[in-house]
Amino acid sequence: MTPARRENLERLLKPRHIAFIGGRDATIAVREARRRGFHGQMWAVNPKRADLDGVTCVPRIANLPEPPDAVYLAIPAAGVTDALRELEQMGAGGVVCFSAGFKETGDTQSERDLIEAAGDLALIGPNCYGMINYIDNAALWSFEHGGWSPGYGAAIVTQSGMFSSDITMSARSLPMAYMVSAGNQAVLGIEEFLDTFAEDPAVRAIGLHIEGLRDIAAFERAALKALDQGVPVVALKTGSSSIGATLTFSHTGSLSGSNELYQALFDRIGVISVTSPSQFLESLKYFCVAGPPKGARIAGFTCSGGGATMLADHAEKIGLNFPTIGPDGQNTLTSLLPDIATVSNPLDYTTPIWGHGEKTYPVFATAISALHADLAVLVQDYPAEGLDASKIYYQNDAAAFAQAAQEHSVPAAICSTLPENLDRGTRRHLIELGVAPMQGIHETLNAMRDAIWWSETRARTRVDRLAALRPGATIPNPMVLTEDKGKSWLRQMAVAVPNGHVCNAAEAAGVAQDIGYPVALKMMSPSLPHKTEAGAVALGIKDAEGLSSAIKAMTATVAAYDRAAVTDRFLIEVMSPKPLAELIVTLRADPQFGPSLVIGSGGVLTELVRDARTVLLPASKDEIERALCSLRVARLLEGYRGSRQADIPRIADALHRLCTEFLKARGEVAEIEINPMFVYPDHIVAVDALIQVPRS
Amino acid sequence: MTPARRENLERLLKPRHIAFIGGRDATIAVREARRRGFHGQMWAVNPKRADLDGVTCVPRIANLPEPPDAVYLAIPAAGVTDALRELEQMGAGGVVCFSAGFKETGDTQSERDLIEAAGDLALIGPNCYGMINYIDNAALWSFEHGGWSPGYGAAIVTQSGMFSSDITMSARSLPMAYMVSAGNQAVLGIEEFLDTFAEDPAVRAIGLHIEGLRDIAAFERAALKALDQGVPVVALKTGSSSIGATLTFSHTGSLSGSNELYQALFDRIGVISVTSPSQFLESLKYFCVAGPPKGARIAGFTCSGGGATMLADHAEKIGLNFPTIGPDGQNTLTSLLPDIATVSNPLDYTTPIWGHGEKTYPVFATAISALHADLAVLVQDYPAEGLDASKIYYQNDAAAFAQAAQEHSVPAAICSTLPENLDRGTRRHLIELGVAPMQGIHETLNAMRDAIWWSETRARTRVDRLAALRPGATIPNPMVLTEDKGKSWLRQMAVAVPNGHVCNAAEAAGVAQDIGYPVALKMMSPSLPHKTEAGAVALGIKDAEGLSSAIKAMTATVAAYDRAAVTDRFLIEVMSPKPLAELIVTLRADPQFGPSLVIGSGGVLTELVRDARTVLLPASKDEIERALCSLRVARLLEGYRGSRQADIPRIADALHRLCTEFLKARGEVAEIEINPMFVYPDHIVAVDALIQVPRS
Repeated sequence: MTPARRENLERLLKPRHIAFIGGRDATIAVREARRRGFHGQMWAVNPKRADLDGVTCVPRIANLPEPPDAVYLAIPAAGVTDALRELEQMGAGGVVCFSAGFKETGDTQSERDLIEAAGDLALIGPNCYGMINYIDNAALWSFEHGGWSPGYGAAIVTQSGMFSSDITMSARSLPMAYMVSAGNQAVLGIEEFLDTFAEDPAVRAIGLHIEGLRDIAAFERAALKALDQGVPVVALKTGSSSIGATLTFSHTGSLSGSNELYQALFDRIGVISVTSPSQFLESLKYFCVAGPPKGARIAGFTCSGGGATMLADHAEKIGLNFPTIGPDGQNTLTSLLPDIATVSNPLDYTTPIWGHGEKTYPVFATAISALHADLAVLVQDYPAEGLDASKIYYQNDAAAFAQAAQEHSVPAAICSTLPENLDRGTRRHLIELGVAPMQGIHETLNAMRDAIWWSETRARTRVDRLAALRPGATIPNPMVLTEDKGKSWLRQMAVAVPNGHVCNAAEAAGVAQDIGYPVALKMMSPSLPHKTEAGAVALGIKDAEGLSSAIKAMTATVAAYDRAAVTDRFLIEVMSPKPLAELIVTLRADPQFGPSLVIGSGGVLTELVRDARTVLLPASKDEIERALCSLRVARLLEGYRGSRQADIPRIADALHRLCTEFLKARGEVAEIEINPMFVYPDHIVAVDALIQVPRS
Repeated sequence: MTPARRENLERLLKPRHIAFIGGRDATIAVREARRRGFHGQMWAVNPKRADLDGVTCVPRIANLPEPPDAVYLAIPAAGVTDALRELEQMGAGGVVCFSAGFKETGDTQSERDLIEAAGDLALIGPNCYGMINYIDNAALWSFEHGGWSPGYGAAIVTQSGMFSSDITMSARSLPMAYMVSAGNQAVLGIEEFLDTFAEDPAVRAIGLHIEGLRDIAAFERAALKALDQGVPVVALKTGSSSIGATLTFSHTGSLSGSNELYQALFDRIGVISVTSPSQFLESLKYFCVAGPPKGARIAGFTCSGGGATMLADHAEKIGLNFPTIGPDGQNTLTSLLPDIATVSNPLDYTTPIWGHGEKTYPVFATAISALHADLAVLVQDYPAEGLDASKIYYQNDAAAFAQAAQEHSVPAAICSTLPENLDRGTRRHLIELGVAPMQGIHETLNAMRDAIWWSETRARTRVDRLAALRPGATIPNPMVLTEDKGKSWLRQMAVAVPNGHVCNAAEAAGVAQDIGYPVALKMMSPSLPHKTEAGAVALGIKDAEGLSSAIKAMTATVAAYDRAAVTDRFLIEVMSPKPLAELIVTLRADPQFGPSLVIGSGGVLTELVRDARTVLLPASKDEIERALCSLRVARLLEGYRGSRQADIPRIADALHRLCTEFLKARGEVAEIEINPMFVYPDHIVAVDALIQVPRS
């Protein structure tokens, strides 16, 4: 973002004056600015109307009293480019362009014209709902809107106008700072908003609804800035399905991209990825009110056996751990709790002390302290309005819990089993107490797990600085090297391959003798990228006789498969001993995300269990080791059923070296697929390799 | 349930009179009966009070004017047994026993006394919140309650009082028929309520919150009755985690049992299993209002590209399919939709026709008809109160959608992206239109998937009647047969095992010669159930020399492992050729669930991916085939990478025969574990087998 545009964006987000240009839609925007409590100057432009909802109209942009900080533009698409040029030249700050009819209709030229006309204007849209600033009370928004702020909150950027509207209408008391409906992102996109909101002191968390990103490197820089600033980012990425990807493209002209690459990106830079709209809001609320935890130890409380069980069940499913209370804590709690209670974590403190804050406070405080808890959660379903004579009991326990958590500096949440059983008054009150009012047991535990992960990732990333991603052009239409040439390349890069030589049929017996039986035989032909299917591989050949007949059989089989593919060039290799595990290792480059490594279970597991992990490059050795260890097949490397353990850091190091070589060879090598890569206790061997290079 | 108790339960559920016995808690129950609109006679029993909230007290039970149909009992635990005996003898119908202090405190004797005293009374509890009848307006309930009924609805039975209360407070407009908080289930349990509600014409779906079942066979009978009657059952089973199981036991004294066995039970008898409280209510609402579908073809609609994408994404994730609209439908829809719309399913009909029912109705009707849809869903997030000038647009589209769905007899749902964006007035109105007002995109699609599964299961179960389960005593402390004896047993049961013989070391060479090399050698010893760990297995022995050294080495290794385990008895077997796939097959009996089969991926996969399925026995061949095909390893049987295809029905038949033999041998065989079971194209071979039998 140019410094001029950045300055203009500040003006747009916190405008002193707003010019509304248009008719019916602009009138709605005037109303919504008033609803938000905008106290700056409002101007209106319309050659045919006297006023827009009481704001006097001037006929033309040129008649505006001074260059407006912010402009709400809702005129027919044909006039947008001229209007933008005029606004830019007069020195306006930013524009929300509600008008549609650009890239999303397939008309990319009109969008290019619009971008050119906008110059350094801070332009949101076109084809968007606009922007709401809940901190300074400004709105340039196209429909009735709700939402609320205690003076800090979440900044949310969406790629679906309807979804942004749904969020402002939600009943969750999510503290809000900004809402941006980014539309076509012709000029300002998610990357720029992320970068801007990361340094806004009112923003405690950033929520992104992403259909597709435009600039991965810029997104990474902005997300790392947010991570550095301690502002968590929660992403709801849609368009993961095949139908969804198609719909996304027809909706905003965005490519939704590969799920695996997005997930790898999010994992790399500490962006929390959620899949449901409710979770999106609940995770943001947790961060805005409770804040991130220092560690992973959770203390859980309920006044219901059923609630405690539900907490424990979902926690186990998502890998969250409620630690056990030690003997001292057990004893103290036993003395504080009614006889019918069982000391456990999560703890059902039982109805005899329910609502008696003087009795529940010591229980909360003792358990939090005994557990050395880093996070605390209490389950409470408040009664519905009109049925709430018992509400004071809940409130007493909530106050006791809030006090105990605050005294121990522990991020705290109160959550309801059913999302709706936490009324607005209670939510607002809990926020004042600094307790996140969370709706739904599952959503709450998911948010806590993600908060723990975020804190861990942030701590790690501050030590282990990431090298920037390198998106860029990929090699078009590459060709596959024959296996022997591919393996020569690998050998030069210090990657072990089985000992082997290339020869013709007549030389084969001598070569095999030198190598030592049993051997593998493979026909080398540029027309045989899939050798197994073509019958061009024979394994475990025991002697010269077997070799000779294998050569004959192979030549016949390949000829039947593709006569033109037959050659008299054979790779003869020593058979590799049985490894601890087989991996598949792929290195390739994506024009958007740049180079990446995919490692996964090889052999039969590859297809049966899709046990694979994508890592964007450059990556540190630690990242690669974490990815390797997260695979199920990693169990085979950890001394499975009495077999030897692998030196995992050493294996990760070897993979890391391969990645480094791949990055260095950019432009020379398009893709490397090693399948299988045999893993031994202290080294790896590329048993088969497909390497793609530019066509010369 | 005895006929007398069944009759008493009818009286309790639909009482002409209720006697309230107790003090403060009974007073609350009087108020709640009035809140529900109970118009029958109300009596009160309390020796010290003149009245309970205006209901005049008699001092003793004996002073009641006649035997009450229903009794709300909230007196100290010590007096409960005597009160029940008196009520039973006077001819009362049923009792809600709010009083706690029985099995849940560990005092099982007091609970046995209570059961004995209750005789044929229909007793709910003890330690429960009670019962609400929303159809006939009766309540015996211990706290303020909400909830609503349009004259039909869900019958819900819970094992957590607090959770039942949370449900009555929920803001989802779930049509209710009954709410039962079952407490300790001393007399009436989930099984009896299920059986009773299955034949109540007002009950359209049954929801069960289950911590643990008492009588699996009775539950199965009742669930099959419900399935037969066309009443879907939705179960929220809690206590699946290790902490949860412990908490459950301390909460109501129930054993939560094995997750796999419960899941197998639910799958077998068409019970829909959910894991979240919100999903529980949403699935029930779907069934109560929309009803089960005839097939699996879904038509989806939104007026937002973002919404359509979210529908498609989650559907793909849970295996739901939005079929493509054929060319004729495409053409008609193109003519009905604005230019900016793309014809797809789910379909974003776009804002230009939004809210114009005369334009959206033909879109809905055409798409439903062109898709031959069995279910239809429209995404709408209604604006919040006070921000809803646009509500009429939503209502117009909802009415058009309802009409189109009704005309095509398609179960219909309108769902909001965020659960709360569907206000109470809208929900009630949609229910009047016969459209399920569903809250949350994920919950809606999950409910639709489960409804499709339920309809399929019901259709199948009506053809293929299930043989009843046979819970019962298991064999205590069984012993393991040596492999040769286990395999003899299998061979008698017509299960193929590798050709082999038992001999001593001196005879080994001759036996191996007869069998033919390569052979496997295993030491047979009653003290070696885990032969591999002890070094008592040698595979792929190629000749007499190898055999001789293997015997020596094995004898030494086993001696080092456990000197007392060494024998001079060896099983020599032919080596089995490489199979298509390896399975693990386990047959065992559970005292609660009876015999079951577990099949899963064998070999390394067993532990790496936990790819296993439990089937309760007796099971039909089809059930076993479905379980087999649901495994990931089944892909290896379907002609994986050019290898031969297995005759899956034949393999399933062989497994079915093994199950039948196991059932016949009950009392003689405690457990069979075959690992690996080799699967070939047309047969299976038990390569290793552990069979447990009673100690003689």
